[in-house]
Amino acid sequence: MAKELREISIAEFFEKNRHLMGYQNPTRALLTVVKEAVDNSNDACQEAGILPTIKVWVRQIDTDRFRVVVEDNGPGVIPSKVPNTFAKFLFGSKFHRLMQSRGIFGLGIHGAVLYAQLTTGKPVKVTSSIGEAIHVHELMVDVVRNQPEVISHQVLPNPRGWHGIKIELELVGSYATGRHSIFEYLKRTAIANPYARIVYVGPDGRFEFKRKVNRLPRPPKRMRPHPYGTELGMLRRMLSLSKARNLSAFLQTEFCRIGNRSAQKICKLAGLEPKRRPCDLTPKEVERLHRALQQVKLRGPPADCLSPLGKLLLEGLKKEVRADFYTHVTRPPTVYRGFPFVVEVGLAYGGEISPASACRLYRFANLVPLLYDQGACVLTQAVKEVDWRRYGLSQSKNSLPAGPLMMAIHLASVWIPFVSEGKQAIADYPEILREIKLALQDAGRQLAKFIRRQKRAQRMRMKMSLFERYIPEVASSLAALTGRSRERILNKLKDMVRRGGEVDEGS
Amino acid sequence: MAKELREISIAEFFEKNRHLMGYQNPTRALLTVVKEAVDNSNDACQEAGILPTIKVWVRQIDTDRFRVVVEDNGPGVIPSKVPNTFAKFLFGSKFHRLMQSRGIFGLGIHGAVLYAQLTTGKPVKVTSSIGEAIHVHELMVDVVRNQPEVISHQVLPNPRGWHGIKIELELVGSYATGRHSIFEYLKRTAIANPYARIVYVGPDGRFEFKRKVNRLPRPPKRMRPHPYGTELGMLRRMLSLSKARNLSAFLQTEFCRIGNRSAQKICKLAGLEPKRRPCDLTPKEVERLHRALQQVKLRGPPADCLSPLGKLLLEGLKKEVRADFYTHVTRPPTVYRGFPFVVEVGLAYGGEISPASACRLYRFANLVPLLYDQGACVLTQAVKEVDWRRYGLSQSKNSLPAGPLMMAIHLASVWIPFVSEGKQAIADYPEILREIKLALQDAGRQLAKFIRRQKRAQRMRMKMSLFERYIPEVASSLAALTGRSRERILNKLKDMVRRGGEVDEGS
Repeated sequence: MAKELREISIAEFFEKNRHLMGYQNPTRALLTVVKEAVDNSNDACQEAGILPTIKVWVRQIDTDRFRVVVEDNGPGVIPSKVPNTFAKFLFGSKFHRLMQSRGIFGLGIHGAVLYAQLTTGKPVKVTSSIGEAIHVHELMVDVVRNQPEVISHQVLPNPRGWHGIKIELELVGSYATGRHSIFEYLKRTAIANPYARIVYVGPDGRFEFKRKVNRLPRPPKRMRPHPYGTELGMLRRMLSLSKARNLSAFLQTEFCRIGNRSAQKICKLAGLEPKRRPCDLTPKEVERLHRALQQVKLRGPPADCLSPLGKLLLEGLKKEVRADFYTHVTRPPTVYRGFPFVVEVGLAYGGEISPASACRLYRFANLVPLLYDQGACVLTQAVKEVDWRRYGLSQSKNSLPAGPLMMAIHLASVWIPFVSEGKQAIADYPEILREIKLALQDAGRQLAKFIRRQKRAQRMRMKMSLFERYIPEVASSLAALTGRSRERILNKLKDMVRRGGEVDEGS
Repeated sequence: MAKELREISIAEFFEKNRHLMGYQNPTRALLTVVKEAVDNSNDACQEAGILPTIKVWVRQIDTDRFRVVVEDNGPGVIPSKVPNTFAKFLFGSKFHRLMQSRGIFGLGIHGAVLYAQLTTGKPVKVTSSIGEAIHVHELMVDVVRNQPEVISHQVLPNPRGWHGIKIELELVGSYATGRHSIFEYLKRTAIANPYARIVYVGPDGRFEFKRKVNRLPRPPKRMRPHPYGTELGMLRRMLSLSKARNLSAFLQTEFCRIGNRSAQKICKLAGLEPKRRPCDLTPKEVERLHRALQQVKLRGPPADCLSPLGKLLLEGLKKEVRADFYTHVTRPPTVYRGFPFVVEVGLAYGGEISPASACRLYRFANLVPLLYDQGACVLTQAVKEVDWRRYGLSQSKNSLPAGPLMMAIHLASVWIPFVSEGKQAIADYPEILREIKLALQDAGRQLAKFIRRQKRAQRMRMKMSLFERYIPEVASSLAALTGRSRERILNKLKDMVRRGGEVDEGS
C-alpha cells in the first residue's frame, strides 16, 4: 500500500473533480465557461481603469458541442505570461492580495480550458495584446504536471493598437433558457455593473446590455489584514516571515488600523517588550500576542477596500419590476477572519410582483450574480432564518417568505468564502450570517411600516366608502331638519370625509 | 499587474479557503476533524483485512479549545512516509486508483492538521507502527511550500507488537449535540460499518458501538475504467501514455469489459486498423475512436469493485425506529463518466415514526454518513423530485414528502463526486440523479401497495365496527321472526363478520 503513496497534481485533481468547479452537467458547464471569462474581463478592465466592453458569442456547432468566444477591451496580458495565466492551475495575481475582485482563486479560467480539452480534445485559443503586437496562443493543460503546453504561437501586427483578450473555446454543453441561462447571467451582470457594455450573440439572437453609467466606480483599494480574526497560525507565519526590526514596527506595518499607540497597548496587554524581534517570539508568547490582538479596541477595517453596489441594487430591482415599495440597506463594513465585508439588501414589494409565489431572491457576490446552488448559500439561509411574519409576511418553517416580494442581497468582501470552486454559493461563516440577518431585519422593519400603513389606508378607504354611501341620505335629513341647502351640506360632508382620510393616511 | 502573477501553493489555497473542507465554523470544524480521522482508520483497516477497533477521545481543554485523539488498530504507515501522509496536501494512495473507499482526495487529514495549526499553532502528533518500532512524529504543514515540517521524531520500542495509528490534534472548536454531533456521526458510521467497534469518550461520557458482525465484507476490487463515459481528453492522454504495442491491445488492457472481439468491433466502427500504434493517432482519429467506444455494445461495469450495504441499510433503520413497514431496493450497478456506482434505498413507514413532520433522511456515501449540506446534495434533490403523492404521501412543491416516513439512501462508487472537499453533499450528475430517482420510485411503489392495503383494511374495519353495532338488534329481530335462539344467531353473525374481514384483509 505504501508504495502507492504519491503526489497528485492539482490539475489532475480538478480534472477528476470537475463538478467542484461547476462542470457536473452540460448546461451548467456552458454557463460556467462564459461566466469565468466574463468575470475575468470585468476584473481586468476595472483594475486598468477601462470602461469594459465585453462581447460574448455562443454558437452551437453540433448536437452537444458549442463554441464560446469572449472578447474584452481590457489591458491584455504580457505575452510571456499568457501560457501560465490560462493553462496552469493555481496561478494568478488575485490570490495573494486583499482586495475586492470577482475572481480570486486562480482556478476559474483554467477550469474552463481543462473542461474544453477534456470534452472535445481541443486547445484554447487566446488572442491577447497589451497594445503592442498581437499574440495568438493555442494552449492545453499538461494535466499530469500542471504545466501549460503551447500548441502554437503566432505574432501578428497590431496597426490599430488594439488591446484586450479574446478567448475561444470548444466544449460539450447544453443550451438552457430561463433562470439558469447565459442571458439571465449577463442581464444580472449588467444590473450590478452598469458601467459595462455587454453584447451577447447566442442561439436565440443578439442582445445588447447598454452602458448606463459613463464612469467606473471608485476602484477598491488593497488592504493589510485586520487584527481581529487573524488566526494564530497565520500570525505565527507573519512573525516568522516579517522583515520588521521589532514587534512595534511589525504590528504597524503588517496590519491595518494599528498605529504607534495601539501597538504599545497591544504589547503591554501581551506582556511583551515592543523592542523584541518578531521572529524570536516563543509559541507561548505568540499565543499571548494573538489574544492581545483580539482584546485591544481598534477601529473597524477601512471601507475603501470594498465597493458595495449602494443604490444600484435598488436601480436593478426597479428596472426588473414595478413595485409599490422599495427599500435599501447597506450595513457598515465588518470583519470575518480578518477579512472586511459589507452586506447590502434591496427589497421591492407589491405592485406587479406576483403575490402567490415564494419571494424571488437575487444573490450577488462582489458584483457577480449567483445563479446556481441557492439552497446551499448563506444568503438564502439568512432569509430563511429571519422571522418575516413579524414584518407582515407569511412564511412557513425553514422557507423563504411568501408574498409579492423581491429581494436582492449583495456580499462584497476582499475574500468571499465560496462553498466550492464553482463559486455559486457562499459558506455560512457565523459573522457573515449574522450581518446578513441584521440587514434583512432592518429592511424588514421598513417593509413592515409600509405594509401596516397600506393596511391601515385600506381599512380607512373601506370605512370611507361605507360612510360615503350614506352621505346623500344624511345630507337630505340634515337639510330637512335645518332648512339649509342640501347641496351645500352634501359638499361639506364630502369634504370632511376626504380631509379626514388624508390626515389619517398621512400621519 | 503582470509582475504579481505567481503560483499559489495548494496548502495556501486551502488555508485561505478552509470552509471548502468543512471548517467554516467551530462546530463543524470539530466534527470534520473527527470524521477525517475515523474515515481514514476505517479505510486502512478494511484494506488490510483487519476488523477495525477505533477509539475517539474528545476533551475540552479551554472555552473553545478541544483535544481530539483517534486511534486505530490498522496496518500503520511506513515511518518514512508519515510526514508526507499527514502534512502534505494532495499526497495519498487513493486518488490514482478506481476502487470504492471512504477517502479519495488526498486532502482530508491534511486539512485537519492545517486547521489545528492555524487555530492553535500546535503541531499534530502522530504515533504509528507497522508492527515494528513505534514512531512518534510531531508535524506541521509548511504552508508556503506545501511540505511537511518535522518538529520532532522519536522512536520507541514496541514489545507488544502494536500496529496502527494514533493521531492527536488540538484545535478551536465548539461541541454540539443533536443531528450535527460527533455522537450522531459515529452512531450512523456504526450502522453502515457493523464490523467496526467504535469507542467514543467525549464531554457527555463514554459510549461504545459494539461490533455486530465478526467478518469484513468482501473487499472491493480495483477496476480499469469503463469505456462508456470515458472523456475525449482522458482517452487522448491514455493513448499517449500507453505502453501497448497496438490499438487492439490498448483497448483490452486499459479498459474493463473489452475482449478481443469487442476490440475488433470498436476498431471497425472507428475505421481504424487494430495494428495501429496508440500514440500515432491523429486528433480526428482519436475523436472517431471515442465515438466508437460510446457506440459499441458492452456489458456494464463489474460490480465487484463496489460493496453496497445491502440489507444492512434496513437493519440500520430497524434499529433506529419501530415501523409498520420496511422495504429495500438495490439498483444494478451503472456508470457515470466511466465510474461505476450503485444506489440503494431503504424505507421505514408508520409505527413509531412521527407522522406530523417532513420525512427523515439518512444519507450515506461509500459507507460514510453525511450530516451537513443536506440541501445541496443530489440525494435530497432526488427525493424532492419524485412525486410522492402517487405513492400515497403528501408533499408540497419542491419539498421532502411528509408523513411517518424514514429514508436511508446510499451511493457506493469508485469515485463519489462530492460538491466540495468537505465531502458532505454529492453533485448532481444527471446519471446519478436518474438512478436515485429510479430506486426511490421502486421503493415508493412498494410503499404505495402497503399504504393502499392499510387504508383498505382501515375502511373495512370501520365498516365492520359499524355493522357490529347493529348485530344485536338484527339478532333480536331475526330471533323474533324465526323463533330460534338469539344467542346462537348473534354468535353466527359475529363469526361471519370476523371471517369476512379476514378474507378481505388478507387478499
